[in-house]
Amino acid sequence: MRHFEERLDELRSRLLEMSGLVEFAIYRSVHAVVDKDEDLARQVLENEAQVNQLEIEIDDMAVRLLALEQPVAIDLRLITAAIKINNDLERMGDLAVSIAERALSLMHEPVVNAQIDIPYMARLVESMVRKSLDSFVKRDSELARNVLFSDDAVDSLRNGIYKEMVRFMEENPRSIPPALNLIFVARSLERIADHATNIAEDVLFLVDGVDVRHHAEAHH
Amino acid sequence: MRHFEERLDELRSRLLEMSGLVEFAIYRSVHAVVDKDEDLARQVLENEAQVNQLEIEIDDMAVRLLALEQPVAIDLRLITAAIKINNDLERMGDLAVSIAERALSLMHEPVVNAQIDIPYMARLVESMVRKSLDSFVKRDSELARNVLFSDDAVDSLRNGIYKEMVRFMEENPRSIPPALNLIFVARSLERIADHATNIAEDVLFLVDGVDVRHHAEAHH
Repeated sequence: MRHFEERLDELRSRLLEMSGLVEFAIYRSVHAVVDKDEDLARQVLENEAQVNQLEIEIDDMAVRLLALEQPVAIDLRLITAAIKINNDLERMGDLAVSIAERALSLMHEPVVNAQIDIPYMARLVESMVRKSLDSFVKRDSELARNVLFSDDAVDSLRNGIYKEMVRFMEENPRSIPPALNLIFVARSLERIADHATNIAEDVLFLVDGVDVRHHAEAHH
Repeated sequence: MRHFEERLDELRSRLLEMSGLVEFAIYRSVHAVVDKDEDLARQVLENEAQVNQLEIEIDDMAVRLLALEQPVAIDLRLITAAIKINNDLERMGDLAVSIAERALSLMHEPVVNAQIDIPYMARLVESMVRKSLDSFVKRDSELARNVLFSDDAVDSLRNGIYKEMVRFMEENPRSIPPALNLIFVARSLERIADHATNIAEDVLFLVDGVDVRHHAEAHH
């Protein structure tokens, strides 16, 4: 059996591979909506199985490390954080799949004016995802705190899109189905941001030992 | 320090306490929508902090058990299942809070015809939640499989409600905001059912060692 440190490194690197796949899926799904690019949407659907497979592998790897190695406190905290981050990444991957499915439904619909805020919201959410993973890799609590601050901005962007969509639907009842699809895209982006926030909270707990879980929720 | 078995029993019983709180929150939030009962909605919001606190306690308890006791394979599987089930329960609690918030927005709106399927969907989802927890307590894989079968029924109920709501909004553009709230209630119920399905999958892995994760997702 290989050395514990070596296996911990492998766990970390598999988790980075997972985050790369998921970030790419989010990026593709959003561009499938914005640029009406059917190929990008299909690529997200095709890669879902790979993300799911990797989640199971990482989970098994982490549980085996816990079982066989009897890790000390600090490594234990790292491994349990890895289990949670892996779970958040998998859920982000599912949300990218939802967005890609909405993109396919929207493929032949005219572009809605309210849609213009979606790329902006998507860029903010993508940067939160990136920063949350970077904060884990670099054990950087400043960067993790930065993610927590962005969460409110995402919520108000989502509310803006929501209100604009309601107005649009009221004025154009025939466009209700595509407008609903865009509302769900904004909703999925908001939930991706929530998962990035979860990861940032896990990093703060890992690095500083500060438990900030559920604090952010008071705003909702 | 108390005996390991005793602490494992305590973990189990705290998890049952958590599931009791969450089931009650789901029940109250749905009835707040259906019966326009503002008190029930407020009770769900007030109990959120308690659910969140219990989630953290159970999580800490499980991680301490992992760290201090170096459990053998079968207990390890039970403890990691408890961590996951705890997480699913907390998310169900969040969804009950979302439903309660929608209930408050809907409080003074007229009842929509399409609403009549929501109580039926809610009863199905509540029974899935109940069965998934029972299957964990009794280590009953038959019951767990039963939960997996219900998931498709929930999805088609949600689709039916969705379509009826779209038709309703097209005919009554002024009722778009309340109809959207009901769509989100149906969506939250569907996600609660997904978490019950996750728990049932964890139970199957725990009892039979069969990994059924992600199989159900192929239908989506």
